[in-house]
Amino acid sequence: MSLNSFGRLFRVTTWGESHGPAIGCVLDGVPPRMTLGVEDIQPFLDKRRPGQSRFVSQRQESDTVAILSGTFEGRTTGTPIALQIQNEDARSGDYDENRDKFRPGHADYTYQAKYGIRDHRGGGRASARETATRVAAGAVARKILDPEVVIRGALIRLGEKQVDRANWDWNDTADNAFFCPDAAAATAWEVYLDGVRKSGSSVGAVIEIEASGVPVGWGAPHYGKLDADLAAAMMGIHAVKGVEIGAGFAAATLSGEDNADEMRRGVDGKAEFLSNNAGGILGGISTGQNIVLRFAVKPTSSILTPRRTVNLSGEDTEMSTKGRHDPCVGIRAVPVGEAMMACVLADHLLLHRAQCGG
Amino acid sequence: MSLNSFGRLFRVTTWGESHGPAIGCVLDGVPPRMTLGVEDIQPFLDKRRPGQSRFVSQRQESDTVAILSGTFEGRTTGTPIALQIQNEDARSGDYDENRDKFRPGHADYTYQAKYGIRDHRGGGRASARETATRVAAGAVARKILDPEVVIRGALIRLGEKQVDRANWDWNDTADNAFFCPDAAAATAWEVYLDGVRKSGSSVGAVIEIEASGVPVGWGAPHYGKLDADLAAAMMGIHAVKGVEIGAGFAAATLSGEDNADEMRRGVDGKAEFLSNNAGGILGGISTGQNIVLRFAVKPTSSILTPRRTVNLSGEDTEMSTKGRHDPCVGIRAVPVGEAMMACVLADHLLLHRAQCGG
Amino acid sequence: MSLNSFGRLFRVTTWGESHGPAIGCVLDGVPPRMTLGVEDIQPFLDKRRPGQSRFVSQRQESDTVAILSGTFEGRTTGTPIALQIQNEDARSGDYDENRDKFRPGHADYTYQAKYGIRDHRGGGRASARETATRVAAGAVARKILDPEVVIRGALIRLGEKQVDRANWDWNDTADNAFFCPDAAAATAWEVYLDGVRKSGSSVGAVIEIEASGVPVGWGAPHYGKLDADLAAAMMGIHAVKGVEIGAGFAAATLSGEDNADEMRRGVDGKAEFLSNNAGGILGGISTGQNIVLRFAVKPTSSILTPRRTVNLSGEDTEMSTKGRHDPCVGIRAVPVGEAMMACVLADHLLLHRAQCGG
Amino acid sequence: MSLNSFGRLFRVTTWGESHGPAIGCVLDGVPPRMTLGVEDIQPFLDKRRPGQSRFVSQRQESDTVAILSGTFEGRTTGTPIALQIQNEDARSGDYDENRDKFRPGHADYTYQAKYGIRDHRGGGRASARETATRVAAGAVARKILDPEVVIRGALIRLGEKQVDRANWDWNDTADNAFFCPDAAAATAWEVYLDGVRKSGSSVGAVIEIEASGVPVGWGAPHYGKLDADLAAAMMGIHAVKGVEIGAGFAAATLSGEDNADEMRRGVDGKAEFLSNNAGGILGGISTGQNIVLRFAVKPTSSILTPRRTVNLSGEDTEMSTKGRHDPCVGIRAVPVGEAMMACVLADHLLLHRAQCGG
Repeated sequence: MSLNSFGRLFRVTTWGESHGPAIGCVLDGVPPRMTLGVEDIQPFLDKRRPGQSRFVSQRQESDTVAILSGTFEGRTTGTPIALQIQNEDARSGDYDENRDKFRPGHADYTYQAKYGIRDHRGGGRASARETATRVAAGAVARKILDPEVVIRGALIRLGEKQVDRANWDWNDTADNAFFCPDAAAATAWEVYLDGVRKSGSSVGAVIEIEASGVPVGWGAPHYGKLDADLAAAMMGIHAVKGVEIGAGFAAATLSGEDNADEMRRGVDGKAEFLSNNAGGILGGISTGQNIVLRFAVKPTSSILTPRRTVNLSGEDTEMSTKGRHDPCVGIRAVPVGEAMMACVLADHLLLHRAQCGG
Repeated sequence: MSLNSFGRLFRVTTWGESHGPAIGCVLDGVPPRMTLGVEDIQPFLDKRRPGQSRFVSQRQESDTVAILSGTFEGRTTGTPIALQIQNEDARSGDYDENRDKFRPGHADYTYQAKYGIRDHRGGGRASARETATRVAAGAVARKILDPEVVIRGALIRLGEKQVDRANWDWNDTADNAFFCPDAAAATAWEVYLDGVRKSGSSVGAVIEIEASGVPVGWGAPHYGKLDADLAAAMMGIHAVKGVEIGAGFAAATLSGEDNADEMRRGVDGKAEFLSNNAGGILGGISTGQNIVLRFAVKPTSSILTPRRTVNLSGEDTEMSTKGRHDPCVGIRAVPVGEAMMACVLADHLLLHRAQCGG
Repeated sequence: MSLNSFGRLFRVTTWGESHGPAIGCVLDGVPPRMTLGVEDIQPFLDKRRPGQSRFVSQRQESDTVAILSGTFEGRTTGTPIALQIQNEDARSGDYDENRDKFRPGHADYTYQAKYGIRDHRGGGRASARETATRVAAGAVARKILDPEVVIRGALIRLGEKQVDRANWDWNDTADNAFFCPDAAAATAWEVYLDGVRKSGSSVGAVIEIEASGVPVGWGAPHYGKLDADLAAAMMGIHAVKGVEIGAGFAAATLSGEDNADEMRRGVDGKAEFLSNNAGGILGGISTGQNIVLRFAVKPTSSILTPRRTVNLSGEDTEMSTKGRHDPCVGIRAVPVGEAMMACVLADHLLLHRAQCGG
Repeated sequence: MSLNSFGRLFRVTTWGESHGPAIGCVLDGVPPRMTLGVEDIQPFLDKRRPGQSRFVSQRQESDTVAILSGTFEGRTTGTPIALQIQNEDARSGDYDENRDKFRPGHADYTYQAKYGIRDHRGGGRASARETATRVAAGAVARKILDPEVVIRGALIRLGEKQVDRANWDWNDTADNAFFCPDAAAATAWEVYLDGVRKSGSSVGAVIEIEASGVPVGWGAPHYGKLDADLAAAMMGIHAVKGVEIGAGFAAATLSGEDNADEMRRGVDGKAEFLSNNAGGILGGISTGQNIVLRFAVKPTSSILTPRRTVNLSGEDTEMSTKGRHDPCVGIRAVPVGEAMMACVLADHLLLHRAQCGG
């Protein structure tokens, strides 16, 4: 049992603080003989990296990953893989005020209350910078998965704005700063988020993650359910406040007739579903349909507008957060959500193989 | 690692099928010297028990719990506590048709695909009957928690109907068949659900669970976060498709100013929050405010209306489910959600004590 | 994490006290579609059962096992298997003196000190009766293993007496009350242990367990090593004080030349070892040779001779233990050691399959 | 579950190969607010470091540890602590022959068979170099333990030679190259081991580890027993083939009267034991006496004498190992055994506090 590890067989342990010398993760249980190099990992880190548009944090980090163990001549050896990323652009001085004050909506207060100590610089361990190590882990997880498993994410809501699903084109997610699958929406969002940013405010977001190509049979009732593991994985991402699978909360309003996905014999004799309200999971086990989930990210709590708070001495005060922040932290949560999906699926591939064979 | 266990230090392992001789659970890590008898557990089982109104399954089970180990002269000894409930009213004949057909919306198909075998009688291991063992575990978890931790649940949506929060009275949840905190709504729901039931249909629901009295400091970043553990616990309940904490999905539409809960010095010098959009958790750690979450339950998939499906041979067929089912399985999910909250909190109490001391 | 569970993928959770209503275990991770009935388990329980000769406890227990879950029509379903054994012949009155006094050499004192409470009747949870559930688990583990994996155990030392390895015949272990592989020694041991028994004393023992047919490649460095898991499994058996693998402690006196098992190409082109000082494990991974280990069991601490001790009030006193005890508890440890070997190997079969494929 | 992690609450994850860029570990569950700096860790690494006498490997490593996370201004924050040590003196060319041949007695063959690939340089992941990370973890574990818990180790056998316990002086262990508590023996061992070394051979060893100051009550039956955890911890050290606690294997030859440690009321009213055959553990729980264990280390398998083996193609060949090796790898196992004892005890301190309170 580790509080900084997740996964059962594909096991990820992360460490590091926002303003420490480095962050990293150790990946255990990776099958041997897979090709693996930094070139497999770096593109995903680049996608999450700050400083790439005016809509994300301006911290300049190359997020260059190093593989310190677990591979030999470009292939995995079955031993633990240590990945490491240097922190290059920490400006701890920006956070001097945080030392004694608790940012409303942040973990400052709870870390201090729990541990009686905290690294206040850039949020310390609570910083979203930790998600870079998740993304690195996710890149390795994708290598464990069969190539036909494709994992994609999209921002479907930005504050008060949302996509028109009629316009959905996965290719568009690569063409705008928001991972938005609706090109028209993305254009409008630029103006909207510029306004939010310039006013020193922030907004929340909803992200949708889809995994296609997952075979029927992954997951394990009752306390290794695929949907429960995914819910924990997504809810554990910084600032996430809700997770839903398939029809999600809307399923509560449906009738049994409308909700249950009917089945027919498919062209190849395999069962096919006529709808996917289940989001690809029934009884905690994958159905073979696309796995579809959404999660809600709250607005960045670090804002320029002064807010009421207390300080370490328990006295009333106010604070506005300087530092370099994302006007919508949900944008960079897209590659993080994809990574967490990959990690959970890789783990369940191994679990299924263990109990049920190849 | 066990697929039928959850919790780290307060560890619950469940077993049993709907139509086997019995169901049960083993509870490990329970502190010694606590008073514990069946009278502590039975009331919670009675609350979840089927056959108590026309709005739930008519299966007649007394759900009488026996304590087979772990106590001596009415007190816990620190050794594992085995709890067991006999199955008394299984009518396996009702499920003969299920043997060869997959009920749409059910786990029949995925269990068969994963394991190549399944106990089709009453849903076997996938049956919501398993939740009785969770409720029993939750009763013991409540004993671990300080008496000032109060856990309550309510049904806040039944299909298309929802409560008026202005009418909220926790006492009302004990006075109607729905655990509904809005007496006026409950009256209307009787008529509504009678209609659903008589038409052979079903509806979904949303449940809200609240825990008050939880001190600041429980939970542990990053992969033992209290909210992530709660998300897994709730999403793992049968038929749940969504979980949200505090403002939840609505947080995505808020501005940073509106979402972040401001703080002031309280009367006793302790910090107080001016709102609770966080739902009592920041950075995965409890804030000391009420922990508030909601989860969505899909409509019961076992309905009388014939639906299209396939059989074991992969051929097209139709089926309507007989057996005795809940027109809204979400009703009995209320005590289950309370139990899961209790189990997660008890586990985190022990975890916090381990790392940070008393 | 559970304190009453072991194994990673083949996961065993045990519960129950010597004088409670029953004892049992829950087995998780068992592959589906294996044939399994009580007839697969009972013979191993019968081998461990007390009351079968004058050299073991005279408690009369049929140790009849019931399968309460996890099978359907005689095959495993992949869901947890609950096994249960009723306690039939508990004479708690024999232990009244134990309530207030600590038996020297027993866990009475440590349980009381740790938990502040204990079930003193028959040793409560600390009783060797718990090993019946291990044996039941081991029987299921054997079914997971390929039939060519053969696990056998033998008593090689009884107090001051030991076997002559020149006389070793595995068949003899079934023909005497000691699981002794040396028929001549077994005859002598009868006289010897009768003397011990009649004098109200007891003696220790050394058990050897061998597993043949284990393929090369099971085990996982560094903290899932096969030898480390076996060491924990054996040291965790009641009254065990030492474990060694292959040449064991004798390896400390060897030279590097004499200890390292040389290799040659075998008849089928596979590598063969010219000796087995390693006991079938190198670097924590099985070599394909027989796995050979030995463990030492201390003499039964419950003896008729009065010994000095203290009572619950911390006062000096004396006690001799009545109740029905084994003059050499090591005898019945033979089937227990076999069972633990089977459980560890089954777990590693699944682990290896998970990471490295079929 | 991780194959490269151990401990339940004080959780150690190690990574790295002999000839990779670095080795390291991540420590989770460390209590907050402890002072911790490299000065707490380095002395223990220095004790294990190679190149310090002619009796250990001549590889020149400073084994300088860096703390990359988990502390703030010299105190622990409760977040994971990443420790890292650079590899400075890897001479991979020494191992070219190992690429295609399996060293008898080594893990070369089993790693290759299990994973189908291995880093042959210096033994790769199987190298005893990994133990440096255990020693670093152990140094942090000692900080978790109360200062009155004192952990010490000694070499009590070197091949055919052993100490005279009448000469035992713990202070002597710091004054010779062997951690030998018998000054006279140490002098004789110099000559003896020089002979072994010059002949290109190697010998085994037995190490004794003692922990004093451990309170009664740590450990948890049945599968978190303190002795079982210690057995796994010691057996998992490289080249260890046997572990015994207290009287160990000798207990098998004792009578019940002689083995059971009698008790008397002590001066302060606390129970005292009149002997310590139990080695400080009864029923898996500490008794308050010194915890005493011994483990046997086989002779270094890498020797200059040519031995018969096979190569990757399965053909017969011979090899003698060059590289820089310890003529008795057991010497440097002394600080490793101490470290593992510290890690296991720290874990059980936290476990006991979790279940039973302060």
